[in-house]
Amino acid sequence: MKEYVKKLIIRYSGQKKNEMMDDIVIEFPLTLFVNGEEIVTLVCTPNNLRELGIGFLTSEGFISSFSEIASFELEEEGLLNIQLNKELTNTDTFLRRKITSCCGKGRAGLYFINDARQVKTVQSEVKVKLSECLNNMTIMEKRSKLFRLTGGVHSSALSQGETVLFIYDDIGRHNAVDKVIGSAMIREIDTSDKCLILSGRISSEIVVKAARANIPVILSKAAPTNLAVDLADELNILLLGFARESRLNVYSCPERILL
Amino acid sequence: MKEYVKKLIIRYSGQKKNEMMDDIVIEFPLTLFVNGEEIVTLVCTPNNLRELGIGFLTSEGFISSFSEIASFELEEEGLLNIQLNKELTNTDTFLRRKITSCCGKGRAGLYFINDARQVKTVQSEVKVKLSECLNNMTIMEKRSKLFRLTGGVHSSALSQGETVLFIYDDIGRHNAVDKVIGSAMIREIDTSDKCLILSGRISSEIVVKAARANIPVILSKAAPTNLAVDLADELNILLLGFARESRLNVYSCPERILL
Repeated sequence: MKEYVKKLIIRYSGQKKNEMMDDIVIEFPLTLFVNGEEIVTLVCTPNNLRELGIGFLTSEGFISSFSEIASFELEEEGLLNIQLNKELTNTDTFLRRKITSCCGKGRAGLYFINDARQVKTVQSEVKVKLSECLNNMTIMEKRSKLFRLTGGVHSSALSQGETVLFIYDDIGRHNAVDKVIGSAMIREIDTSDKCLILSGRISSEIVVKAARANIPVILSKAAPTNLAVDLADELNILLLGFARESRLNVYSCPERILL
Repeated sequence: MKEYVKKLIIRYSGQKKNEMMDDIVIEFPLTLFVNGEEIVTLVCTPNNLRELGIGFLTSEGFISSFSEIASFELEEEGLLNIQLNKELTNTDTFLRRKITSCCGKGRAGLYFINDARQVKTVQSEVKVKLSECLNNMTIMEKRSKLFRLTGGVHSSALSQGETVLFIYDDIGRHNAVDKVIGSAMIREIDTSDKCLILSGRISSEIVVKAARANIPVILSKAAPTNLAVDLADELNILLLGFARESRLNVYSCPERILL
């Protein structure tokens, strides 16, 4: 599907006024039904919707392996029907705490710790080279055509060593991450030696998503929150932020850095 | 409350490695109870929590005037109890569609149009000067100390003509907007000649929030989505994006521009 539309806009630049066609990113609604029950509507960039749905179920703790999915079918009008091999539990709890207004996850004092307790420490001995991390960030940025056109999306990618395996864009930073996680699930890729790259900020929710997918390294162009840092520490995840040109910050697990 | 903490990090800059104290933005959970019922947990920057809660109820359509609130009390542990003068309706519908992963609102084909239909066209004859808009954006950016320290927050403000009335920061861009709207509600300010300024992207949800608060102008430093543009057109809102230095783009209602 098309990811952007052309619209007539007016651009003012100092005293100059120009009518021009501009590229505007598309906002599309995807509703997930799991075992026939409506779970969530994600407003997203309208591609890679299977990856998004399956990544969301993984990173939000509904499933932990691709084998738990019996079938999935994408209907044209933005419905993804997923049939699991198991019962669905705790939908209501999920819904009540999952209102995030763009950042993080509910009630750090309670839900957050519950999440952290449910989530297992990442099992991985991997170490990464910072030069490769910075290089992979540059690769991701260069490849995001949609961002260059519209300025309206976040990107996320999965890398291994010096190789960027795949990259997704989305109007939501959580969605971009879910597409990466879903793609790894569908391809049944071992994530325990991979790095999750994202353009957006790192809130605790992003760390929980990575941990659920057993990804030991998170690399962002932007800032983390304090809960994200604390949680990454606990979950054995190397958190790298503000990766820009030749600079980056290490917030947790420096032992995962290969010098 | 403190909005950031100092943490020891490692900064790599080229080959140089430095251990240093860095400022990290705080992620705090605020749970809203309305008429005794748990509605939502917002993960936010831990200040202006009354503004956030009341703004959220306004911009999500639970209330339309401050007089519908009988009382509100902020408890220490991150609970805001709000008692309304009326029954609460449609909580379940709200919860099911309100999962947004950082952008927009559920199911454009259905919910979105329902929202748009519920929301009234903004009633206002106001016109704005673009030079004042650009100037107000600069004022907002300069005043955000938390962004300069941590890089981890969005800002939002309300302006009238050349005056910026108030500015709020939050780790969530929706939260920053809700704090502005809540502040206007609490102070019982007439918003029909004001401009909503934000640092983040404009998804359809932001436009709906502005419309519910009857704000006729939205000014952002970043990009809009196509649904945001269409909706702003319908709701009689001037949408200004990519406001940077002396440049900005006009996406809807150019008749609101004063030349």
